[in-house]
Parts: sequence; structure tokens; C-alpha cells
Amino acid sequence: MAATRLRLRDLVDRFGGEIVGDPDTEIERVATLRSAGPGDLSFLANPRYRNELAATRASAVVLSPAEREASALPRIVAHDPYLFFARVVDLLHPAPAPAPGVHATAVVEPGAEIAPGAAVGAHCFVGGGAAVGEGTELGPGCYVGRGARIGPGGRIAARVAIHAGCVVGARAIIHSGAVIGADGFGFARDGERWFKIPQIGRVVIGDDVEIGANTTIDRGALDDTVLEDDVKLDNQVQVGHNCRIGAHTAIAGCVGIAGSTAIGRNCMIGGAAMISGHLTIADNVVIAGATAITKSIAKPGYYSGLYPFEENKAWTRNAVWLRHLDALAARVRRLERERPEEAP
Amino acid sequence: MAATRLRLRDLVDRFGGEIVGDPDTEIERVATLRSAGPGDLSFLANPRYRNELAATRASAVVLSPAEREASALPRIVAHDPYLFFARVVDLLHPAPAPAPGVHATAVVEPGAEIAPGAAVGAHCFVGGGAAVGEGTELGPGCYVGRGARIGPGGRIAARVAIHAGCVVGARAIIHSGAVIGADGFGFARDGERWFKIPQIGRVVIGDDVEIGANTTIDRGALDDTVLEDDVKLDNQVQVGHNCRIGAHTAIAGCVGIAGSTAIGRNCMIGGAAMISGHLTIADNVVIAGATAITKSIAKPGYYSGLYPFEENKAWTRNAVWLRHLDALAARVRRLERERPEEAP
Amino acid sequence: MAATRLRLRDLVDRFGGEIVGDPDTEIERVATLRSAGPGDLSFLANPRYRNELAATRASAVVLSPAEREASALPRIVAHDPYLFFARVVDLLHPAPAPAPGVHATAVVEPGAEIAPGAAVGAHCFVGGGAAVGEGTELGPGCYVGRGARIGPGGRIAARVAIHAGCVVGARAIIHSGAVIGADGFGFARDGERWFKIPQIGRVVIGDDVEIGANTTIDRGALDDTVLEDDVKLDNQVQVGHNCRIGAHTAIAGCVGIAGSTAIGRNCMIGGAAMISGHLTIADNVVIAGATAITKSIAKPGYYSGLYPFEENKAWTRNAVWLRHLDALAARVRRLERERPEEAP
Repeated sequence: MAATRLRLRDLVDRFGGEIVGDPDTEIERVATLRSAGPGDLSFLANPRYRNELAATRASAVVLSPAEREASALPRIVAHDPYLFFARVVDLLHPAPAPAPGVHATAVVEPGAEIAPGAAVGAHCFVGGGAAVGEGTELGPGCYVGRGARIGPGGRIAARVAIHAGCVVGARAIIHSGAVIGADGFGFARDGERWFKIPQIGRVVIGDDVEIGANTTIDRGALDDTVLEDDVKLDNQVQVGHNCRIGAHTAIAGCVGIAGSTAIGRNCMIGGAAMISGHLTIADNVVIAGATAITKSIAKPGYYSGLYPFEENKAWTRNAVWLRHLDALAARVRRLERERPEEAP
Repeated sequence: MAATRLRLRDLVDRFGGEIVGDPDTEIERVATLRSAGPGDLSFLANPRYRNELAATRASAVVLSPAEREASALPRIVAHDPYLFFARVVDLLHPAPAPAPGVHATAVVEPGAEIAPGAAVGAHCFVGGGAAVGEGTELGPGCYVGRGARIGPGGRIAARVAIHAGCVVGARAIIHSGAVIGADGFGFARDGERWFKIPQIGRVVIGDDVEIGANTTIDRGALDDTVLEDDVKLDNQVQVGHNCRIGAHTAIAGCVGIAGSTAIGRNCMIGGAAMISGHLTIADNVVIAGATAITKSIAKPGYYSGLYPFEENKAWTRNAVWLRHLDALAARVRRLERERPEEAP
Repeated sequence: MAATRLRLRDLVDRFGGEIVGDPDTEIERVATLRSAGPGDLSFLANPRYRNELAATRASAVVLSPAEREASALPRIVAHDPYLFFARVVDLLHPAPAPAPGVHATAVVEPGAEIAPGAAVGAHCFVGGGAAVGEGTELGPGCYVGRGARIGPGGRIAARVAIHAGCVVGARAIIHSGAVIGADGFGFARDGERWFKIPQIGRVVIGDDVEIGANTTIDRGALDDTVLEDDVKLDNQVQVGHNCRIGAHTAIAGCVGIAGSTAIGRNCMIGGAAMISGHLTIADNVVIAGATAITKSIAKPGYYSGLYPFEENKAWTRNAVWLRHLDALAARVRRLERERPEEAP
């Protein structure tokens, strides 16, 4: 952790908010309420942790206006304590600047353009005609296919694959094991056999996109697969060929999106949700985790479809009826028809 | 895209079908109806895109007999427009032939056999006793364990791992991040601790198999894990130890198959389906996406088991009853018993 | 397979159990009942394979006391035949000792400590300040970030990434494509945009942990993500930031665990289960495959929540009622209210 010392007044000067208590209180680290000790700044964003606020040993905390009096510690009252705190973490932990240059063990084919301030790590491969932008770092073992282009200011972790012709915008963060631009899953039946349809589209990714570890984004079949600006994908997400994901949409881990589905802007998709192909999801849609989306969604809103768990014995008793719901409903209908007041 | 020019008559000479309109119409590219412009061939396979057919700027289209008159453009009428079009894409976009040879940065252990026309990319590792077949390309950063054998004509993308002793047939296509032959998940309880069971089987893969990015196929515990010919696996599929997958079966993204399950031939398994271990699935079974298969399936057919989504408020009201279905059914039964006509 | 010959009496001397039949019966391999031939030892742990016991060509078998007379073959009767057999497999198939040393193509930054008996494979990268313990093997293409520490006796397969500062205990087994210590998925809303929260915690992994292929374990946001001793993770598991997984817990393939969830000791989590964030799961909890856990579990037990599959037509008829369960229940309630005996 950094050894910078900051006073509360320095933080408020930078990020706004109001100080309650000594504005010269110094902090040099950030920590959770539970782990914090002297010198730490902490925060409360979720009221369920209010007990921990009472017990924290932090030197100062960031609170919302509603929690202003919930602690006697020196504190910063901010409209959005989580965002305020995030800015402090970022201030104390700037991403290390890469050391520019191409590692001696990297292979850069002729015709690739590596910006002077880019860093290409050990055992990387950059194909002919590819471009790596200014200040972008490729961690060890990355693969950049021919003609792929990565914008400036990116942080590409170790062992990422970006296939031929794909385009990644500025300030991308791509985590280890991500695969951008593998072939989409496209086959035509030819009698009993499958005939592979060459996948000749690209993946085109906007600016400020983050892609999680072991996430896969397939190249388009004919047209491109597109991620707009500020899309955030967690780990082990699968994006099929020819999908389009709108700006500022965030997708949690283990989500699968089948081919040719368009997801709007500002959507939030919970972990392990599964979205069928050829759908259109509107802007501002929130999808609960573990929900299977099988139809287009035209209206912003919050959508769910998750089977609730319970103790196995109870589940066994209840779940057996799922295969008899139609019959059960028919029995109810019969009872309704036979009600005395309906009898002749 | 390729700059080859082809006349409709050339295509029909090769692939069959009937020309309506000028047989000398030239095409040089392929595109979707929406993206197409002059010089492009497009196609209609899904009637939902008929509006786009009306508006397309393509030079020619491929249609089914049923849609023969749905466009005034020069057109090819083919029994299966999707397959016909796929063949044209393939004709225009042949996979580039690899440049044979072993890259200077690759490590090939003594005793490995690299066919003269094989290409071993930068930073590959090929262990002793392994074999890479004629015309097979290993992209940069592949790992081929000792004694593993890869047949001819394969295209193994960057950063694939094929572990010791595994066998891959001819014309394999394996995408980045796939792991073939990691240990299966096998432990015996030894009091509170787990005792690891060495996984000494292999993965044996037939000809014409395609394996998606970041898909994992575990080696067998004692016997082998087997994929028969022409199996197609999408991205992020997990195949447990000792599974057998029948010829021509296609499995979409994010499917998980637990150990020792046998899946028949010509099956199609939708994305994110999950299949328990030690099951037998018949030939010609289709499983809907996001369905959990917990029992063997003896009969060909189409199987589903997916909880439908709805707006969260409605879901909350409805889903609460899932934990009371048995009680609800008992209430219906009581009402039935108390019907007047059943009263003594 | 190994060519060692062992007599049944040798096995019982080592591992206990009782011999029925000739104690000098020699075995040199292990096999399933179905595959076994002369010279093979096999076993029966699951009664569903009793037919195969009758037909096996094995030289000897391991049986439970209950199955003592189920075969006429020379046999070892052991309390836990599966564990006994596992020990024999382990005896016949010891993990090969790595050849110590750093491969000429590996990059080890100054200040990294590689134990004299450690093996660092081709094209590995080990960052400054990292440590690789005695007898630990890094397969080809591994990435070990700065300051990461890997204990002794580990087997790290090809192409694993262990990021800066993470800690892995003794005797770890980590399979290809696993990513330890990528950033957690943490963003604060800043108007329409996302503000990335630097993830400054670590991943800290105990002793005797096994991690499957392409599994991802994110580093903590502020505090650490922790896996206690003897945790076993299968392939394609996702562990979010700040999770804690208790000792001896085993998690099957494709499970996703969202951030800040604590799972107890000795739990078993079935494949493709999904666990929400910020939950607490007690010790000794068993969760069925494909179950979504959305609330904390305070009591040991077996929990399920899986939608049963059926033929698609039947499913369609039944599943439609899931969106009308509340209305159906209301109809039942109305019928109950209108029962004659309740009528005035």
C-alpha cells in the first residue's frame, strides 16, 4: 500500500463532500470497517454493516448524509460514499506506469506498429499489421493477431488473446485468459455432418471497456460483434457472434449471451444469467442473476426468473408438482365449474 | 475480404441450385441482408428477416424454393439457402495455409514428431513423444504435453493446452484457451480430508471436431474421455472425466457435463444446459438451453426445463408459491374430497 | 501404466483391509470393472455397477464388507473400497518428479526466489519478488506476478496465471488456464459512467488446494479472497472478490460465487450452482447442482432448487402456469372460502 499521507481537507478539496470533525486528520491507507486501524480511511455504503461502523478502528470514515451522526469519528459526508471512497482508493493506488519497450523474448512480426510508449511483455506475439497504442501494456504471454488494433492507455493482462483484425478502443482493461475474436459457433447441416461457416466478422470494442478473466467474445460471422464504450464484463462471460452490447452496460460473471442478441445501454445483468440468441433487450434493463432470458425485452425494468432453493426434502415434495401444474390447474378449473352456485 | 469475382453460374455449377435472373451477375463478397451492397451475395434463411430482404442492396441473394418470388434480385434458389451460402463463404474465405516450420522461439523436446508441413508457432511447447500431423498449425503459445498426438490438417489457435497422452484426430479446430486433458475432479474422502485419485485416462478426440475458446475437457480417471467424429463444442463448455460424446453432436456455449455421462449421436444441446454425471442420453436428443438434465434420456425428442422470466414484481408474487406447491395441491385435493357430490 | 507388480498381501500390508482368496495374486495395473483384464485390480463402490462385477475379467477386486460375497475373484474387503482403490492408483502412478531448474526460455526477474529443487518450465514468467517453493513445478507458459508466493511441492500446470502478491500454500495443484488474482468486479456509478475501484487485496490460498482448469479466483477489493486448506475446485469455477471458502470444501465445475460470500468448512457444492454475493453458508452444507443460492444458509443440510426437465411439449403446458401461480393460489383460496360448510 502507498505511504502517501492525506488530510481529510485534501480529499474534500479534490472530491467535494463535507468534513465533520478535524479536517487535518491524516489517512494513509484505505480499508474495510472491520480491517481498518489507525491511519486508515473506511466507509459505510451498505447499512447492513452499521455494526462494523460502531466498532471500527479507522482514523476516519466516509458516510452518506443519512448516516452523518452514525459515528463520532472524523468523517467525510458525501452524497455517494462508495464513489467518494473509490476515488480515494484510486488516488492512493494509481496503476503502475508500464516500462515502455518490447521484451527481448516477445515476437513482433514485421509491419506491426508498437507505439513508442507501449510495453510488450515477455513471450508476447504481435502479428503483422497489428497496432498497440501509446502507453498500452501487454502482459507476458499475450497474443495479438494480424491486423488487430489496440488503442492507447490499455492494460492487457498476462495471457490474453486478441485475434486477427479485432479492434479494441482506448483505456481497455482486459484480464488474463480472455479470448477476443475466436470463431463464432456457426455450422450448417449437411446431411448428418456439420459444415463450418467461416467467421469473417470482427470484434469491435469501444473505449473504457473492461473484460474479465477467461471471458470469451466471438468474432462476427459476417458483420461484427460490438461492445460499445464503457461496457464492463466480469469473468467467464461468453458473448456470441454478432452480439451488440450498449454503452455502460455491466455484465456479471458466468453470463452467457447467444449469438446476434442486442443488449441496450445502461443495462445490468446479474451473474449466471443466460440470454438466448437473436433477441433485443431495451436500454436500462436489469436482469436478476441466474435468470434465463428467452424473449426480447422492450421495456426498461427489473426482470427475474429464478427457482428458489429450499431444503432438499421440501424441494422434492414441491418440485414434483412442476410436472403436473397443468393438471393441477385443470382440477381447480373443474372445482370452479362444479361450485354449488354454478350448479343448475 | 477476398477480391475473387464469381458469377452466379459459377456458384450453381459448383453447388447446385437454380438461378433466377441474370446468371452472369458477379459477386465478390458475402454479407448479411442489412449490410450488403453492390458486389455482395446475401441470403435469407430465417423468415423473420424478410423485411431486410426487401430492403437489401445486395447484388444477388440465395433463397429457398418457398421464397423464390420474395425478391426481384438476381437470385439462386437452393433447397438449403443457409448451407449454400456457407459454401460460398467458405469458397471466398479459404483458411490461410500455415507456413510450415517450427518457430525459433518454440520448444520442441527430443522425440517429438513434427510433420514436415506442420507449423509450430512462437513460444509453443511440444513435449517428447508428441506428434503434430501434416499441415496442422499450432498458434503461438500452445502447449502439447508428452506423448500427445494431433492429427493432420488441424488448426490449433493460440494458447491451447493439450495434455500428455491425449489424442486429437484429423482436421481439428481448437480455439484459444481450450484445455484438453486436465485432471478430472476425482477425490475420495479420507476422514475430513480429500485424497486425490490420480487421473490416468486420456482424452481421445475423433476427426473433424471443433472445440471452442476456453472449453475444458478432462482426461479420464481410468478409462478415456471420448469425443467421436464431427462433434462441435462451443466456448466455455466443460466436459467431465470419462464422458463420451457421440458423433455429430453439437453443444452450445457454457454447457457443463459432469463425469461419466454418455451423450448419443446427433444430439443438440442448448447453451448453459447442465447435465449430471453417470447418465446416458440417447441419440437424436435435443435439449433446450438452460435446462438441467438430472436423469438419463432413453428416447429421442426435445426436452426442456427452464424457469420462465417475468418482471421482478410478478416473479416475486408467483415464485413464492414454489415452496408451497405441495401444500397447494393438498388443498385442491381436500376441496375435491369435499365436493357435494362426493359427500355421503 | 506402471509395470510394478504387487501382491494383494502387499496392498493389505500398506493400506489395511482383508484378503479373501489367494493373497499372492499379483496385480500390476488398475482398471474399471468393464475395462479390466488379467493383471488388473478393479473395485466396486457403486452398487449400480454390480452387473459389471459379475462380468469383469480383473485379476482381483476391492469390495465393501456388504459385497464380500458378490464375487468369487480374489478380493480385498475394505471399509471404503473407493478410498482403498484410490490409494492403489496413487501407489502405481506417482506424480513424476519435476526436473529442477529454470528453462532457458523462462524469464525470471531479478529478486525472484526460485527454490533449488523447483522447476520453472519453458516460456514461464516469474516477476520480481515472487517465490517458487522447493519441489514445485511450473509448467510451460505460466505467469507468476511480482511478489506472488507459491509454496513447496506444488504442481502448477501449463499456462496458469498467478497475479502479483497472491499467496499459494504447499502442495497446490493448479490446472491449465486457471487465473488467480485478476481484479474483482468493482465499479461505482459516476453518473452514467462506471468508475473502477482499484482491487488492492490479494488471493490467499492454503495448503493442499486443487484448482481446476480455467477456474478464476479474483483478488480482494481491500481485504483478501481466501481459500482455506484442502479446498478443491473443479474446472470453470468463478470465485468473486473477498470470498472465503472453508477448509475441505469441494466445489464442482461451472459454479459461480459472487463477491464477499463466505462458505463454511466441509461443504459440497454441485456443478453449475450459483451463489449470490454477501452471503454466509454454514459448515457441512451440501448444495445440489444447478441450484441458485440467494440467501444465507445457517444450518447444515442438503439444499436444492432445480427446475425439473421434461419433454418440451409437457414443459410448455406446465411452465406457462409459473407466471400464474399466485392467481391459481387465489382461485384455490376462493374455492375454500366458498365451501358449503363455510357458507352461512
